[in-house]
Amino acid sequence: MPTWQETCQLMRDYRDETISKIRPQIPDLPSNVPLNASSVPGTVLKENEIRITESSTEDLLSQLSTGHLTAVEVTNAFLRRAGIAHKLVNCITEVLPDRALERAEYLDEYLAAHKKPIGPLHGLPISVKEHIAMKGLDLNAAFVSWVGRVAKKDALILTILWEAGAVFYARTTEPQLLMHLETSSNLYGETVCGFNRNLTSGGSSGGEGALIGMRGSCLGIGTDIGGSIRNPAANNGLWGFKPTSHRLPLVGCSAPALGQEHIAPAIGPISTTLGGIKIFMKTLIDAKPWLSDPSLLPFAWRDRFDWLANGGERKVKIAVLWDDDIVRPHPPVLRALKEVTERLRHVDGVELVDWKPYKHDVAWDIISALYYCDGGKEDEEVLAESGEPWRPLSTWVIKDNPNVKERHIRETWDLQIKRDVYREEYNSLWGDVDVILSPVGPGAAPPLNCARYWQYTAQWNLLDIPSLVFPVTSVDPAVDVKESDYVPRNEKDKYNYDLYEPELYRDAPICLQLSGCRYEDEKVVQIAEFMQQQFDLPLKK
Amino acid sequence: MPTWQETCQLMRDYRDETISKIRPQIPDLPSNVPLNASSVPGTVLKENEIRITESSTEDLLSQLSTGHLTAVEVTNAFLRRAGIAHKLVNCITEVLPDRALERAEYLDEYLAAHKKPIGPLHGLPISVKEHIAMKGLDLNAAFVSWVGRVAKKDALILTILWEAGAVFYARTTEPQLLMHLETSSNLYGETVCGFNRNLTSGGSSGGEGALIGMRGSCLGIGTDIGGSIRNPAANNGLWGFKPTSHRLPLVGCSAPALGQEHIAPAIGPISTTLGGIKIFMKTLIDAKPWLSDPSLLPFAWRDRFDWLANGGERKVKIAVLWDDDIVRPHPPVLRALKEVTERLRHVDGVELVDWKPYKHDVAWDIISALYYCDGGKEDEEVLAESGEPWRPLSTWVIKDNPNVKERHIRETWDLQIKRDVYREEYNSLWGDVDVILSPVGPGAAPPLNCARYWQYTAQWNLLDIPSLVFPVTSVDPAVDVKESDYVPRNEKDKYNYDLYEPELYRDAPICLQLSGCRYEDEKVVQIAEFMQQQFDLPLKK
Repeated sequence: MPTWQETCQLMRDYRDETISKIRPQIPDLPSNVPLNASSVPGTVLKENEIRITESSTEDLLSQLSTGHLTAVEVTNAFLRRAGIAHKLVNCITEVLPDRALERAEYLDEYLAAHKKPIGPLHGLPISVKEHIAMKGLDLNAAFVSWVGRVAKKDALILTILWEAGAVFYARTTEPQLLMHLETSSNLYGETVCGFNRNLTSGGSSGGEGALIGMRGSCLGIGTDIGGSIRNPAANNGLWGFKPTSHRLPLVGCSAPALGQEHIAPAIGPISTTLGGIKIFMKTLIDAKPWLSDPSLLPFAWRDRFDWLANGGERKVKIAVLWDDDIVRPHPPVLRALKEVTERLRHVDGVELVDWKPYKHDVAWDIISALYYCDGGKEDEEVLAESGEPWRPLSTWVIKDNPNVKERHIRETWDLQIKRDVYREEYNSLWGDVDVILSPVGPGAAPPLNCARYWQYTAQWNLLDIPSLVFPVTSVDPAVDVKESDYVPRNEKDKYNYDLYEPELYRDAPICLQLSGCRYEDEKVVQIAEFMQQQFDLPLKK
Repeated sequence: MPTWQETCQLMRDYRDETISKIRPQIPDLPSNVPLNASSVPGTVLKENEIRITESSTEDLLSQLSTGHLTAVEVTNAFLRRAGIAHKLVNCITEVLPDRALERAEYLDEYLAAHKKPIGPLHGLPISVKEHIAMKGLDLNAAFVSWVGRVAKKDALILTILWEAGAVFYARTTEPQLLMHLETSSNLYGETVCGFNRNLTSGGSSGGEGALIGMRGSCLGIGTDIGGSIRNPAANNGLWGFKPTSHRLPLVGCSAPALGQEHIAPAIGPISTTLGGIKIFMKTLIDAKPWLSDPSLLPFAWRDRFDWLANGGERKVKIAVLWDDDIVRPHPPVLRALKEVTERLRHVDGVELVDWKPYKHDVAWDIISALYYCDGGKEDEEVLAESGEPWRPLSTWVIKDNPNVKERHIRETWDLQIKRDVYREEYNSLWGDVDVILSPVGPGAAPPLNCARYWQYTAQWNLLDIPSLVFPVTSVDPAVDVKESDYVPRNEKDKYNYDLYEPELYRDAPICLQLSGCRYEDEKVVQIAEFMQQQFDLPLKK
């Protein structure tokens, strides 16, 4: 039996070996890489590789489907850039050059033979968070003791994307327990943000966030039960979408507490563009995944004319949540909100109102209890099995969390009643608001081990409503000065206030979040599209 | 503190007092009422009362909305017939003549003043199972210890029906624990089937079944987690519909194990006609109940052209489940299946296939464990509080059920995984079948304390699919002779085989069941409508 340290080394060696197979090989990077590493890939890659990897998902698809780009050249370009990104931000668990290129060759031959693409994602490389099963590959969900669990088949979501023409070429890191808004594990260490490598990439889909942030992928798959898609999207200046639960299939994801239904997780996309989000959602839902997974809702993807302010008959009503009254967002977040609302104020067909948060602290007490109705026992056992140490944020979310204890059945039912009553109360305040515009978190990506306030994202998980993150700006220390006279409201607020030092956060991306009514996923996406038609996102300086 | 017996007597006296307020008063019935009491109301009621109470829901609504009938005369007629029905089958917990007539008068004035109905249910009397909250009235859910719990507000479903114009005039019995396919409680005793009073009315919505069977109501509300709408509908020759979960609001129903989500209960209609079922569903869903209850799905009621065999482009594919291979249905049930499939075989646009049941015994093991993840502790406590004795079927469903035990959280998650895997497996067999036609149970209404096989209905609760019961025929001892050479397959089968003696079941109604894909509630109703256009239901002899 290897020690846990030996297992970790084994997995890192294996990962490095897969990266070493990328051709042309990725050179070693200079030791003096700047904190903001976003320009580094451009110094290593060839011009066409840069052009490909910096194209939007929708442009790539259009060129792939018409043969203007081959799947092989696109796959090679993303493999190369993913390899470089990894050396900068530590975001990969393995790359799959053999499988991916075999698949890409097949697709190129298919297009040549049939004169048409195999499906709506023909030839598109898609990156995948590790705990989403890929047949024949490890499925450890970041647990040392689960190393060696090999997936017997692909997760249903991958089967559907594959049938639509996707190329899977990279698997990405995730944190211990899959329950940090950061990405650090004993297996792979810490994944960081490419725009400021002193900061976390976010999590739990932080390998995806970091990789896509560095344009080592244009579209990736994450999962989200408290912010795990949206937080890494935000930390890396990306688009990320957490749909309502039971719209996309989770079958084939590995995680602790499988079978729990107290809080429903969701699976969804992170992308460099809104077009990537939309084609991901539409492709999956058009494939009628409910025919294979009866837990899903048999809704088509709806582009509803009446959801927008077309023709001026009604206005899109956007409510702005500036602050949840518990933890005040850092200055750059508030600036982003101001800049976006300023733009929106000048858009015909938009009505802006302020949103008064309703007991978001109570919401956290409910959701963080429901995450761990077993008192965190299963996680504890899985960690103990290998002897790997608890990471600081694992301790924080379970052991230091006053809401976590092992529950009797009746207690879980009572918690679920509390959850439902809270949902009803929140719902009764909603009125005719279309979407709530809010921060994604109380600041930009923080330094490691500091992501200790989830409620700007977990709020919408408790309500189980669709929530989209979009890029707005980045931290500018010259503008985003610290509020010197601010008196924190409570301990959590003080912790967050103390975290902010403008220079520490330089260049960190700032995103915002749009959340809509339950099951109105399409409306949220459509309103974001509408906004994008009015002004650029991220905002032009 | 009164004893439990005193509390029961108090509640029965109160009930009788409310019935004594009906005008004209209900006379005492002769002591020599026949076992089949269905003709008795006709001997007591006036001609116009008979005409009204024997109208279909849709005819009544048409006459009420045009003023051809007043809400007051319709309400009085149903109050009278409900009072008589109660004296025959013991189905009422209280009638509400004062409230109902005040409401009816208001509606009559409204129609006179506005020259239009207040809503789609203008003036329609609707009966309601007791555990659905009515403001200011007892909400005991058949527990002696819960007597005196007074509802603070109406259940959401009643609020919506009220706004659509309904008149609530009668509350109906339910069994101890709400978990028998019979209706017997210490509070109100035993509710029986009006067509053969040696047999049970079914349950748990058995007060509704018995009342509507006697035409003391044309439309009532029940709830169903294992057959509790469909079984009493079947035992009384009625239409009953269990929608997919989360289409109609349960908020405001009282029951043990509130907050459990292992198996989702459903609320739905029982009616003398399919028109009643449809207007109930459509009225509620058109009212967008999801705006008040965010647990509901925001689907409109869909009448989809392509779900039917219109124009002959496709056939409606009906799969016939003759027998679940565990408990063989009694001869009259098999005859009903034969007679219906014989009719269907001659319908253009219908394709008939046989359905092979898939592990319905495993399904029972899963669902009956998930009903009682607390080991039945909560029920035990609620019964102990008053000291009322366990009824035989309460003992059967909890204490004698090998699947019931108090579970740890992890065990409930594992059971939920089993449930989901089972659903996936069943789903994978479904193919292009539109609906499954099956028995509602292994026989007609049995004698009391004998309803010990749920799986012909609970099967569809485990799958959480919509399921509609419709009337077909009734037991004719001359035709439905016992299979003398049958060798039972197992203990449950033997129990059921031994139950059948043709004469004992004389005149007992026989219904069948149509079940469709999850969330395709409308399709199931539409296919039943299509069938009804081809031949009468119940079948003409």
